[in-house]
Amino acid sequence: MYTAKHMKWWGWGNEEVRFNSRAHPGLWPYAKAVLGVEEDIDTPPVPIEAARLREAIRHDGFLSELRLWMRADQICDSRCERLVHAYGKGFRDLFRMRRGMAEGAPDLVLYPENEHDVLRTIRAAVDHDVVVIPFGGGSNIAGCLERTETRRMVVSLDMRRMRRVLAVDTESCTARIEAGVFGPDLEEQLQGYGLTLGHFPDSFLHSTLGGWIATRSAGMQSDKYGKVEDMVMALRMVTPGGILATRIVPKSSNGIDVNHLCIGSEGTLGVITEATMQVHPRSQLRRTHGYLFRDFEAGIEAMHECVRKECVPSMMRLNDPDKTALSMAFKSPSSRFSQAASKVVKGYLRVKGFDFARTCLMLTTFEGSKAGVSRQQSQISAIYRRFGAVDLGPSSGKSFESTKYDFPHIRDFLLDRGITSDVSETSTVWSNLVPLYQATTTALRAAILNSGNDGESGVKPWVGCHISHTYHAGASLYLTFACRQQHGREMQQYLHAKRAVQQSFIDHRATLSHHHAVGTEHLPWLTDDISPVGVMAVAAIKGGLDPGNVMNPGRLRPSTAPFEEWSRAGSEATYPVLAQCSITPKPTSATNSLPLPD
Amino acid sequence: MYTAKHMKWWGWGNEEVRFNSRAHPGLWPYAKAVLGVEEDIDTPPVPIEAARLREAIRHDGFLSELRLWMRADQICDSRCERLVHAYGKGFRDLFRMRRGMAEGAPDLVLYPENEHDVLRTIRAAVDHDVVVIPFGGGSNIAGCLERTETRRMVVSLDMRRMRRVLAVDTESCTARIEAGVFGPDLEEQLQGYGLTLGHFPDSFLHSTLGGWIATRSAGMQSDKYGKVEDMVMALRMVTPGGILATRIVPKSSNGIDVNHLCIGSEGTLGVITEATMQVHPRSQLRRTHGYLFRDFEAGIEAMHECVRKECVPSMMRLNDPDKTALSMAFKSPSSRFSQAASKVVKGYLRVKGFDFARTCLMLTTFEGSKAGVSRQQSQISAIYRRFGAVDLGPSSGKSFESTKYDFPHIRDFLLDRGITSDVSETSTVWSNLVPLYQATTTALRAAILNSGNDGESGVKPWVGCHISHTYHAGASLYLTFACRQQHGREMQQYLHAKRAVQQSFIDHRATLSHHHAVGTEHLPWLTDDISPVGVMAVAAIKGGLDPGNVMNPGRLRPSTAPFEEWSRAGSEATYPVLAQCSITPKPTSATNSLPLPD
Repeated sequence: MYTAKHMKWWGWGNEEVRFNSRAHPGLWPYAKAVLGVEEDIDTPPVPIEAARLREAIRHDGFLSELRLWMRADQICDSRCERLVHAYGKGFRDLFRMRRGMAEGAPDLVLYPENEHDVLRTIRAAVDHDVVVIPFGGGSNIAGCLERTETRRMVVSLDMRRMRRVLAVDTESCTARIEAGVFGPDLEEQLQGYGLTLGHFPDSFLHSTLGGWIATRSAGMQSDKYGKVEDMVMALRMVTPGGILATRIVPKSSNGIDVNHLCIGSEGTLGVITEATMQVHPRSQLRRTHGYLFRDFEAGIEAMHECVRKECVPSMMRLNDPDKTALSMAFKSPSSRFSQAASKVVKGYLRVKGFDFARTCLMLTTFEGSKAGVSRQQSQISAIYRRFGAVDLGPSSGKSFESTKYDFPHIRDFLLDRGITSDVSETSTVWSNLVPLYQATTTALRAAILNSGNDGESGVKPWVGCHISHTYHAGASLYLTFACRQQHGREMQQYLHAKRAVQQSFIDHRATLSHHHAVGTEHLPWLTDDISPVGVMAVAAIKGGLDPGNVMNPGRLRPSTAPFEEWSRAGSEATYPVLAQCSITPKPTSATNSLPLPD
Repeated sequence: MYTAKHMKWWGWGNEEVRFNSRAHPGLWPYAKAVLGVEEDIDTPPVPIEAARLREAIRHDGFLSELRLWMRADQICDSRCERLVHAYGKGFRDLFRMRRGMAEGAPDLVLYPENEHDVLRTIRAAVDHDVVVIPFGGGSNIAGCLERTETRRMVVSLDMRRMRRVLAVDTESCTARIEAGVFGPDLEEQLQGYGLTLGHFPDSFLHSTLGGWIATRSAGMQSDKYGKVEDMVMALRMVTPGGILATRIVPKSSNGIDVNHLCIGSEGTLGVITEATMQVHPRSQLRRTHGYLFRDFEAGIEAMHECVRKECVPSMMRLNDPDKTALSMAFKSPSSRFSQAASKVVKGYLRVKGFDFARTCLMLTTFEGSKAGVSRQQSQISAIYRRFGAVDLGPSSGKSFESTKYDFPHIRDFLLDRGITSDVSETSTVWSNLVPLYQATTTALRAAILNSGNDGESGVKPWVGCHISHTYHAGASLYLTFACRQQHGREMQQYLHAKRAVQQSFIDHRATLSHHHAVGTEHLPWLTDDISPVGVMAVAAIKGGLDPGNVMNPGRLRPSTAPFEEWSRAGSEATYPVLAQCSITPKPTSATNSLPLPD
């Protein structure tokens, strides 16, 4: 049976894929310059043998029941399996895993192959008071996957073997799909029908349909295809109370929409086993162009004008000046010809009065029939031109398309070099985008600079931003930040910065996340976001469907002192110090490899 | 203070508005012919003095608390007020009210003027175990408003004084609006900003924002503006547990979307006091054309093709042959010129081989700038032509536009004449539209014909259908049915037909309602629609937010024998017989008027 591969236990991507820094020779010099790094160090993760797992809790009654319907290869308690399922890929997760701290690991990993497996597992879990954490691709960066339970046995329910497209209605453009399917596998299956889901999040290679739905994910082409919650027509979720199942209808007035109780439930109510999704005929053509705007505000105005004119391409992604500079630094080395062409463009821009310190790159993807793409491109280019844009043509678009799933690798590359980096994203209305951007980037830079100490730390902040995912009333704002680590207080530094950015979102009328979920990472802000009565309502559903609290406990339910718990990680001074050595690139250490089945 | 007027206690529309049958001289002859009516009778509602209310339950502790913050004119217990708030406008409601059976009336009517009034009322209701039923315009036809409680005091919370647009963000196109505002009042206020909500349900004149949200309403132009749940950005709902409030953001990933717990909650969790809605610049131009298709299937194909081509006007409303015939019969008398023109059209259609028994009328509304309307109209007309359509021009569109809010009056007109009529609507995927239509119209005709007795009743069924509200994956199917009443078993007849149509929806993979809500009328099918675990989840939210069950009890929670309760109305042989007299039209009886404040 085909099973999607696991990611590295300590970082992003499959074991055999490593970020190729030689293909991006400008990146590290850029990072060094903007972050004030003087010394090249290398702090690789500990070897796998050094990873520390807690002793597994074994519930024999549960285990012997499992064996009644699951084969041996569906029940795994090896060290490797437990490590891979310990965490998602948030900064905290990677920081701990690189140091071999795998206390979040489950006691057991199960691979259900059908809904019946899931149903019986959940029933047995309820009967034996065993905790179940649904696991898709493990790409979550909000802390949705870590065990919070130390007393009860914890099972990671890895859904990747439930990967089939079960039925396609080509006339209505709907597809019934098992929830454990990964992005590429799903698109390959749909391609057989000439269809696409149109959902391409940054995590596309390493995330699943069920994970997308449970976290309200957004793909890069959401301007055309919508956020995942807009695509779900019906679903099935196995809960401790039984199977919740809805009908495949476009819209209804059947009381409270129970699809929306499952969407975004982050594994706390049950396991989504399948969903019927809106799908679309594959586009004949897709083309991404880069455009330069004089400043961020002009770019935002142009995006908004496209929305006003109801002329929205499938992706608009506007980088602020810092993120634009990073994009340029990230570009692969160019040919002599394109270097020369680039010089010509620069000269032209200077003549046009562009200030490179304020210039912003907007990536725009057009999709459709050949004629449709041409028409759309000319309409949108005309709007952009009215806001002073210069069309860079398809080359920066091609560069984006070829590397768009690589960005998460950069964090591992930087962590290797003693640099912390992370992201926070939100959404707000158009009128609030610029104020929110200014307030939050200012707060974030200040937080990195003072690092939670009184006075300046001497640590130079780098903060970049892009705006994407447009809607009638607003858009998403996505911040990336990085800084040199202060040896021995890396976690405090990180928490101080992360807290500043999230608090700024909430203080400035935005939401805690646009598409990364609540998890543990954003939990302290949930009450402000959805109000205490909103939290109470969510708790009520949880109490009703999972009275034994076996489904992913500790999520979506802030404690009375949420920040205490949240920042505990920073007050522990017990993180092992990683070895530092010279920067000479090394091949992947063999002991870092996980002998997992394909 | 401006307060929207109440509808008639026994029928649709304001007291002074009566259906003008003389403006539609073809309607009654058509109805007589298709329904096999031989005798013209008139069975008017009983005079208001004959209406029977149960003795009001008075909770003195609650009442004296109310008076602490409400003025006398906000607290009403008059016979008139109680009558007007007894029911919505479903068939059962009207059938009973016309006979003076007002047992569903509340004991008291309150008019809150701000959120504080609502909050204190709900708190007092919880403290004194008093039931609260939120009331918007009273236009609901699914039985959402009738009291189900006979032991506790029941209060109708009439929201119409909370009618202000509180804030408008013209840049982001959002408006914060109090929930009690009626359609025309809201549009008038938004017009001052050059904006529109774009929500125009058939009940537009007599329904409120809060009611739309609580029932997941759909407006005629939903193809352009979406269903009401697509427009809600944030809301505030006063619950027994406190105020649930969400943030004004376009999209979020903040766990379970609590907006969607309030949307569609049908008054069972709390009272929606305000919502922030997406709004739109008003269109420069709106134009409705009629088109004729050779048959229903061709019309459906044309609609679907518009969706496929992403070229959807703001309204497509396709009548089946019977509904088309009704539309023609409903038309106002035309001038000699248009009669002559109509002859020419008919001649042309005959030459083109149209069979009038199968011909279908599609009403299509184009909206936007002048140029945009022209472009859209030519694109859509071209698609329609490919499916054999003939453009009738704007005259049938004008006729529709001028009468579109009058349709509910026809039911009163028919009830006066001993005819039962009602509607049921649903939605399904494109591939299922025609099978569902065929199966359901067949089942419905058969149900009317046998009327729940063995063998034929001799009652001729009339069943018409239109399709509207298109989506990527499907559309809504709206059935209208009518039949001559069997004296003494009118309710049994009705229930038999209604049950047949709803059961057919559920048997054929559709939903219990696309935009009319569950109420009591569709409750028996809720468990089939959202699964037992879905019902359990809804009950859990209810239990969490309203443990005292004071908010609109008895809704969204099917009993173990739902049909028994549902059909009890039909097994009671206790309906008073209405007087019958000659058909000579009479002016409104003075005793039927309600002396309500403006």
